[in-house]
Amino acid sequence: MDLLIAHSAVERLGARLLACDPAIRLLQLDQYGQVRMNGRECAESEVRPDVAWLSLDIFAQAQLGRFIGFVERCASIQWLHTVHAGLDLPFYSSLLERKVRLSNSHVHAPAIAEYVLGHVLALFQLHDRFRQSQLERRWQPLGFRELGRSRWLIVGIGNVGTQIANRAMSLGAQVVGVRRRDLPHPGIGQVVAIGELRRHLPDADVVVLCCPLARETQNLVNADFLAAMKTGSILVNVARGALVDEVALLEGLDRGRPGCAVLDVTAFEPLPSDSPLWTHHNVRLTAHSAFAGSGTEGRGDELFLENLHRYCTGKPLLEEITTI
Amino acid sequence: MDLLIAHSAVERLGARLLACDPAIRLLQLDQYGQVRMNGRECAESEVRPDVAWLSLDIFAQAQLGRFIGFVERCASIQWLHTVHAGLDLPFYSSLLERKVRLSNSHVHAPAIAEYVLGHVLALFQLHDRFRQSQLERRWQPLGFRELGRSRWLIVGIGNVGTQIANRAMSLGAQVVGVRRRDLPHPGIGQVVAIGELRRHLPDADVVVLCCPLARETQNLVNADFLAAMKTGSILVNVARGALVDEVALLEGLDRGRPGCAVLDVTAFEPLPSDSPLWTHHNVRLTAHSAFAGSGTEGRGDELFLENLHRYCTGKPLLEEITTI
Repeated sequence: MDLLIAHSAVERLGARLLACDPAIRLLQLDQYGQVRMNGRECAESEVRPDVAWLSLDIFAQAQLGRFIGFVERCASIQWLHTVHAGLDLPFYSSLLERKVRLSNSHVHAPAIAEYVLGHVLALFQLHDRFRQSQLERRWQPLGFRELGRSRWLIVGIGNVGTQIANRAMSLGAQVVGVRRRDLPHPGIGQVVAIGELRRHLPDADVVVLCCPLARETQNLVNADFLAAMKTGSILVNVARGALVDEVALLEGLDRGRPGCAVLDVTAFEPLPSDSPLWTHHNVRLTAHSAFAGSGTEGRGDELFLENLHRYCTGKPLLEEITTI
Repeated sequence: MDLLIAHSAVERLGARLLACDPAIRLLQLDQYGQVRMNGRECAESEVRPDVAWLSLDIFAQAQLGRFIGFVERCASIQWLHTVHAGLDLPFYSSLLERKVRLSNSHVHAPAIAEYVLGHVLALFQLHDRFRQSQLERRWQPLGFRELGRSRWLIVGIGNVGTQIANRAMSLGAQVVGVRRRDLPHPGIGQVVAIGELRRHLPDADVVVLCCPLARETQNLVNADFLAAMKTGSILVNVARGALVDEVALLEGLDRGRPGCAVLDVTAFEPLPSDSPLWTHHNVRLTAHSAFAGSGTEGRGDELFLENLHRYCTGKPLLEEITTI
């Protein structure tokens, strides 16, 4: 079995990969876009993996385009495991059409959930104003909003949304989850369908976007959505930039609805240097880093190894995707 | 029964106070230090309360000295309820010696616990570096430490320490509690006696001070303590400034042990304008505000009303203190 894998992932896991299947052959993609097997450079035509692992390393090596190219051109590929939670790249739906098996992961969910909590607490607790007072050597006590007394609207309660909800609820927040249909959800008391979303916006102190990007959700956060938000509320986007109409958002921020926007993602990434989002006083930008917690790589490695073992022994894969 | 109370607390609670005892007479201390009863200014000699409530209002009105003076001079006082959790003011021990009943409160514990969480997450998640990148219009992804993979040492596991521990553990952190003796504690797996503290410092990513200030704990955080800390760790002080030797702390920060200090309290408050703490890059100052969450006042009101009801009906008081 030939496995297309990042070179750095092999350095990290080497023997543990071979323990799944001693006959495995590692097609190692390095940071220069070159593929090697047993130290020998492979010609493009030789890169014909049976399985492929799109790990975080591929992004770190800036080789996503090369990796996808190999998978797309390879007729023999049977299974792709990807670190992507959001599968909006057309690449993924075309794989399913080709009957390639696909599994993804939610190993960034704990990191993203901590990110959301950290930013909301920092805004509630006026960290910026305390920093400013300190710079001015002013001893200026300030009261702050407690998260335990806030109401959250979490748009999308898949793995990421559920982990955000659990943490907010453990601190005492009231949470309403929003999903495509108002099916109940274990652990989140109130769940409403996306059609009901607007009705809940005026009550929400925090609105978190963690839903898939699809035709129905593109520009979900438009002028109407923003006008329905609570004054001084916080909008957090950890999903995809295109969920938000950025021109409308800037207008909303100027009216205090929301009071602040925490944007890990933007419609175009990297954000163009002339975007007014950079300089708006009530925007926080974090360059698509919410997934990048210190535990994400390790959780991703363990999940892939478990799935590789399952694949080699004919057991059902974890997190297998059959429709997008 | 005569109750010494802040004027603003009467405005907030009026009828609810009288519901406990219709014969109650309210000695209302206003923001100018004047006491009124039924709208009439009282002479100093008339302020002879049976019970007194030191609420947050007294601080907001900057009348703590006046309030304490009335209580100290009043021979007839039977009971004082205070918002203070830390009872290191000599005033409190002298009350107990005079056989005055004393009850305090831990209504700020949820606010302080959120404060600690917010600051640790913000430091782990490099909020300052993201802000700097944004100012420079640089799209700079950064990885961050997850709280769920961190180890905490919580010095003092009374009400505040326990609430901090619960929240950190709910996010997955490993917590060691430190108390005077190594008695077990419901909910915190590992508890060690203060004599064992040093041995646990090298492993702790976060050290939180939330213990009482006493002779044994003054300058607890000295050069030896700091030298034993983990490089890059975070020290948070939400208790009393005098727990920390500030000269030694500044030297420790320059060596990266700790990597950062979050100080809600300092040895002298307000912090003198020539203190080097103001300008140290790795110090965060918040002017004794960690208690000031949006829920603290309401929790304090409910606790006092419950205790007033208990006092009037001869039931045991909540949070009664018999030794300091």
